[in-house]
Amino acid sequence: MPPQATLIIAGSEACADLYYATRFLAPDPFVYLRADGRSLILASDLEIDRARRQARVDEVWPLRRYEERARGRGVASPGLVEATAEVLRELGLDAVVVPATFPLAYADGLRARGWAVSSRPDPFFEARTRKTPEEVAHIAETQRRTEVALEEAIQAIREAEVRDGVLYRGGAPLTSEAVKALLARRLLELECLARHSIVACGADGCDPHHEGAGPLRANESIILDVFPQSLTTRYHADITRTVVKGRAADALKRMYDAVLRAQERALGLIRGGADGMAIHAEVEAVFTAAGFETGEVQGRMQGFFHGTGHGLGLEIHEPPRIAKRGATLRPGHVVTVEPGLYYPAWGAVRIEDLVVVTEGGCQNLTRFPKFLEIVD
Amino acid sequence: MPPQATLIIAGSEACADLYYATRFLAPDPFVYLRADGRSLILASDLEIDRARRQARVDEVWPLRRYEERARGRGVASPGLVEATAEVLRELGLDAVVVPATFPLAYADGLRARGWAVSSRPDPFFEARTRKTPEEVAHIAETQRRTEVALEEAIQAIREAEVRDGVLYRGGAPLTSEAVKALLARRLLELECLARHSIVACGADGCDPHHEGAGPLRANESIILDVFPQSLTTRYHADITRTVVKGRAADALKRMYDAVLRAQERALGLIRGGADGMAIHAEVEAVFTAAGFETGEVQGRMQGFFHGTGHGLGLEIHEPPRIAKRGATLRPGHVVTVEPGLYYPAWGAVRIEDLVVVTEGGCQNLTRFPKFLEIVD
Repeated sequence: MPPQATLIIAGSEACADLYYATRFLAPDPFVYLRADGRSLILASDLEIDRARRQARVDEVWPLRRYEERARGRGVASPGLVEATAEVLRELGLDAVVVPATFPLAYADGLRARGWAVSSRPDPFFEARTRKTPEEVAHIAETQRRTEVALEEAIQAIREAEVRDGVLYRGGAPLTSEAVKALLARRLLELECLARHSIVACGADGCDPHHEGAGPLRANESIILDVFPQSLTTRYHADITRTVVKGRAADALKRMYDAVLRAQERALGLIRGGADGMAIHAEVEAVFTAAGFETGEVQGRMQGFFHGTGHGLGLEIHEPPRIAKRGATLRPGHVVTVEPGLYYPAWGAVRIEDLVVVTEGGCQNLTRFPKFLEIVD
Repeated sequence: MPPQATLIIAGSEACADLYYATRFLAPDPFVYLRADGRSLILASDLEIDRARRQARVDEVWPLRRYEERARGRGVASPGLVEATAEVLRELGLDAVVVPATFPLAYADGLRARGWAVSSRPDPFFEARTRKTPEEVAHIAETQRRTEVALEEAIQAIREAEVRDGVLYRGGAPLTSEAVKALLARRLLELECLARHSIVACGADGCDPHHEGAGPLRANESIILDVFPQSLTTRYHADITRTVVKGRAADALKRMYDAVLRAQERALGLIRGGADGMAIHAEVEAVFTAAGFETGEVQGRMQGFFHGTGHGLGLEIHEPPRIAKRGATLRPGHVVTVEPGLYYPAWGAVRIEDLVVVTEGGCQNLTRFPKFLEIVD
């Protein structure tokens, strides 16, 4: 059996697999095909010059040629499906493998014309999960820049005055929004795009996807979670720290210690061949042993109710996961390690590092210190 | 026949239809279903609190409940397909309609379990193409902010000194990259995200997707094309202006005049019921009549070889298009009108406004003046 032909039709800004395969960034969908060890893309008139210069593929063929062939076959207004069909016909291919996210309309269009189309589960390109040294360097560089911005955000919290339990800077309350804007601005200067950063105080942090809003308060947990993408390399980073401006209550301190211990436990277990599900179960066990229970209280989850970590690279969430549905870790995987505890009565704690898996362990790409209280 | 049930499974950050249907922004895929006039989403433990507060749907159901049901049916590790199947079973639905972009793996998963899955071509929600007054106001506001940033970019070009034909500012050459950074920074301050802005000088501009690089030069065309998304409303804007620092050669002036006339012709034809294909053909006719020919020269397209315009809203490219494959314009459509001419020997010109289609014509949402030479 000949190796299977792989097909992607997407915009490479939205489809990381396609950017990975071509290193060609385009907003509008284009056709990528790999068959018999050769790769090609079809480029529109608008993109063909740039594609020929930039795309790391063996061939760039003009889309127009295949649209014209389809017209010759009586198609009045050929689209990408008809052009793809012409290419498959030229190459004598009768079956293609596509990503799980391949658009149904394209697949049904090809099937209706006689081609066999099957999807392969993620990761579509297994090699994409195992980062090369160059890719690890890109991710580490994005993490460095993120730490620069995070340090400035924490400095703003450090320098804030406290009046009636609220943080003030320059005469006005220091808000989640202001700290997020500071992070975004600084990261943009560093050519990184930070969207949806979380700066969440107190109970806001207990909803792990709440981005935070309003004035920050003293003596309450403040979660800072920043996960930008480099605008130059397109690789992400991800870091979370939890701080308290002033003094943390004992319950919050115990939560912080448990999260730190859970993270250390997970970091100690990560190595090539380790089972992501088992690592996640160990994190849960640390929390249970420390008396922190997970479950629904008054219709709301509390405790630890998200995954321990996720792969990261061209996308912020990639395989493998370290979670209830985990995967085997392999050298070159870059994963977050981010246990957390959330109790609306006490606050929220999450601590997140980014590591690259090695044969015998992992290398932490994160340098930022871990501390709870800011009492300067 | 009962009305068809519609299903989307996607992350609403990436899927504008899902954000449109729910106004709930989430990075990870979730299930949206509309049947018998009622809408629901399945939310994970991580998202359910926020979903209940923010999602504009009739019901938010816990994903966990349907995962548990699937487990009860013997599925060891249920995913979104199995959970969706449980919901469809509960509601007694045997067929769903999904967007053209619906992931093939989900569709094949549901089909294998006995459900009929068919895709509807774009626009999935016809109403999404016809903007409400509130949506038009969001788009107009993003366009206002874009114009503020564009004015600063052009001011930087105006203030630049010319030495040996190169623009200088503060002792260093003024580059495309610097002007793009200025645009991005100013727009971020205005809570808009500008990615892939184009500041392309001379022949660079002849590749309409080339973002531009290196020092800007006097007496050559400079295309500035900015199309940010508001970070607050998520609606886009889009504007292009072409300027020359210094004096434009006669050929470039004639190109500019022809593009301006072509744009005016198109603007004069836009109204409810107008045919996008016919408007595009009229733009082509203006260029041909003015002696500007389109075709391949030495393997490269020159002349006018992209569409006249595209719809815009939550996405930068939406139906309808004003192009070779056009559509009928309807009141409430918001479209760009952006003819251009590209001749590597002379330079590039594109002028783009943003308009909302009305019954009898269109309302231009763009206020920025149009001028070619900057001779101050």
